[in-house]
Amino acid sequence: MPIEKGNQAFPREEYLRRLQAVKGKMAERGVERLIVTQPSNITYLSGYTALSAYVPQALVVSAEIEEPVFILRRSDAPAALYQCFFSRSNTIGYPETLVGSPDHDGYDFVIDHLLEAGGENSSVGLEVNHLSAQDVQKFHRRLSSASIVDCSDLVTWTRLIKSDLEITYMREAATIADAAMARAIEFIRPGVREADAAAEILAALARGVNGKAGTMVPTINMCTSPLTGTPHIAWSDGEFQHGSQVNLELGGTRFGYTAALMRTMIIGEPSDRLKRMHEAEVAGLEAALAAARPGNTCHDVANAFYTELKKFRFEKDSRCGYPIGIDWLEPSASLQLGDQTLLERNMTFHLMLGNWVDEDFGYVISESFRVTGSTAEVLTTTPRSLFQI
Amino acid sequence: MPIEKGNQAFPREEYLRRLQAVKGKMAERGVERLIVTQPSNITYLSGYTALSAYVPQALVVSAEIEEPVFILRRSDAPAALYQCFFSRSNTIGYPETLVGSPDHDGYDFVIDHLLEAGGENSSVGLEVNHLSAQDVQKFHRRLSSASIVDCSDLVTWTRLIKSDLEITYMREAATIADAAMARAIEFIRPGVREADAAAEILAALARGVNGKAGTMVPTINMCTSPLTGTPHIAWSDGEFQHGSQVNLELGGTRFGYTAALMRTMIIGEPSDRLKRMHEAEVAGLEAALAAARPGNTCHDVANAFYTELKKFRFEKDSRCGYPIGIDWLEPSASLQLGDQTLLERNMTFHLMLGNWVDEDFGYVISESFRVTGSTAEVLTTTPRSLFQI
Repeated sequence: MPIEKGNQAFPREEYLRRLQAVKGKMAERGVERLIVTQPSNITYLSGYTALSAYVPQALVVSAEIEEPVFILRRSDAPAALYQCFFSRSNTIGYPETLVGSPDHDGYDFVIDHLLEAGGENSSVGLEVNHLSAQDVQKFHRRLSSASIVDCSDLVTWTRLIKSDLEITYMREAATIADAAMARAIEFIRPGVREADAAAEILAALARGVNGKAGTMVPTINMCTSPLTGTPHIAWSDGEFQHGSQVNLELGGTRFGYTAALMRTMIIGEPSDRLKRMHEAEVAGLEAALAAARPGNTCHDVANAFYTELKKFRFEKDSRCGYPIGIDWLEPSASLQLGDQTLLERNMTFHLMLGNWVDEDFGYVISESFRVTGSTAEVLTTTPRSLFQI
Repeated sequence: MPIEKGNQAFPREEYLRRLQAVKGKMAERGVERLIVTQPSNITYLSGYTALSAYVPQALVVSAEIEEPVFILRRSDAPAALYQCFFSRSNTIGYPETLVGSPDHDGYDFVIDHLLEAGGENSSVGLEVNHLSAQDVQKFHRRLSSASIVDCSDLVTWTRLIKSDLEITYMREAATIADAAMARAIEFIRPGVREADAAAEILAALARGVNGKAGTMVPTINMCTSPLTGTPHIAWSDGEFQHGSQVNLELGGTRFGYTAALMRTMIIGEPSDRLKRMHEAEVAGLEAALAAARPGNTCHDVANAFYTELKKFRFEKDSRCGYPIGIDWLEPSASLQLGDQTLLERNMTFHLMLGNWVDEDFGYVISESFRVTGSTAEVLTTTPRSLFQI
């Protein structure tokens, strides 16, 4: 039986508005067809969130045609029919025989589709930064008369300014992040296994809040002494000890949109160094948020943080954050010195102030925030405390 | 303070043995230095499992030098010092200023390292299938006198045959998968929210079994009516209903090694079609397992399954599975018709018999198994039932 369309994350008009913006940029670059392969960009332009991007798939946006065409693995096509806003006939499943084959893959099918649609002599935009070198070679070889243009940044930068509807989901995601952080602070105790705390946190991220479930659970980073000097470790087989410090990074997710949150906990008395670091980072965070207003740049936000931190005689060598939205990190602007991206209303960032200063010592705090007309809106409500357990 | 080495997942000799096998293949291809960038391949040759692969990092294996050199982001270096078997000086952190920079990234640092180590005129192996087209161009441009060889498959195929130590972790991972599946069968009831069931499953995967925690929690697929015709949806905001079918895919993980498991549940009475499909698939599964012995090929296993399934007048258009190990799917051999890879002792596969036949109807069952000297060892113990709830 044909599957019926499910509830859509956004109304059709929202997707058409996004596509219109993308088509405007395509026109500026003289691109007639854009082959969107970055999973978050596909989600943005279609509503598709199934986790099938480990095999080739592509959303084809044509300048002259209202709806995109989504080409994906045959067995994943029903998920697209269920989730995507466009008409049935615009979802095309490619044969399963192309999966795991040494000679051909789904991109061959995408190229066949372009050739059949008269794309041979057209101008084709590719997201080169997502495709492997072999994939790009294949597009060049099989579309030898086409003009191939690198459009890696086209959709990604379009996503930078959110709609009010996107902001609604990010606020819901932030509420879930708050709940999971609260559960962590409640559950982490000396003698408790790290993995059991991870279980509680992951469960809280799935359950969600107020009947609004976490629609996906991003990996958490739970870096416990002696691993507080490093950001991307999960958890260990061991137990929390008296004196352990825990650096926790987690994110709530609603329909692909993530709000991230980092806090530091200490079981027992914090050292003077940790207390001073916390004080400095919170001051820096507040200075950065105060600078996060339209007219200022990403550089200004980072500079406000670094300047404040220096007053406390601390430094941080990593950047201060990045745009956040679908699938967490958006690879476009950057909260760092020198980034002259102008802030605009409804840009959202993860102000990520994790500071890994020694091999065995670091501190984390972060906020996901929205640029407004005036003061930044912090999406989460977890206190900016050094949580003493 | 310098961080001390943590408990290692494997003894040093195990890593040296793996490296020796890789160096043998490098010699066959005339490659002096291999730049390993696929995250699972880095884990295999180093023990590193931190989730930092969203920025450039590379393990450099030199033919003449015993230990590899690991180049990664400065803030992730302590995780490598803690997790990797090799000496401190072989971990090199690149400056944080290379992250989020438009002009340079970590691969520039890797290339600088190669140039300083005299790699200018050498033969360099790259995992081209993992690198973006832009990255590969950079290697060609900056190492213009080097001979660059595509070694995408070199380490991946080395991983195909596991050591007994790797098998031990996969058995532990399988026990975790069993526990999580049991929790799902116990918890899924009409009126229960799908997200709450997901929470229970994710928590079980983290807690682990017998004091052996899940060291990571891979995403689960929980495809509930009307979405049983598609494999890669997570869960919905809604509740399970009387008559709902649930296709569940999950995996336990120990130190990077995953054992995967799929089962189908039905709330209420199964339809005749579902019962017949279950019967056919279990018969096919047993036929495939019986064919999974040394001397046979991947083709033989797939053929045994398809032949048996046809006796029941069913078909399956997707392949029957793939090698499984670090990070779930290994992109090397394939359980499908035509794949002439000879089975050998201690190869491990996910015999993945998910069968998505209609847009709104599919059925899943799978086993993770090990090739032995004789009969295949199925790693999990969950009954091969159509679970009626």
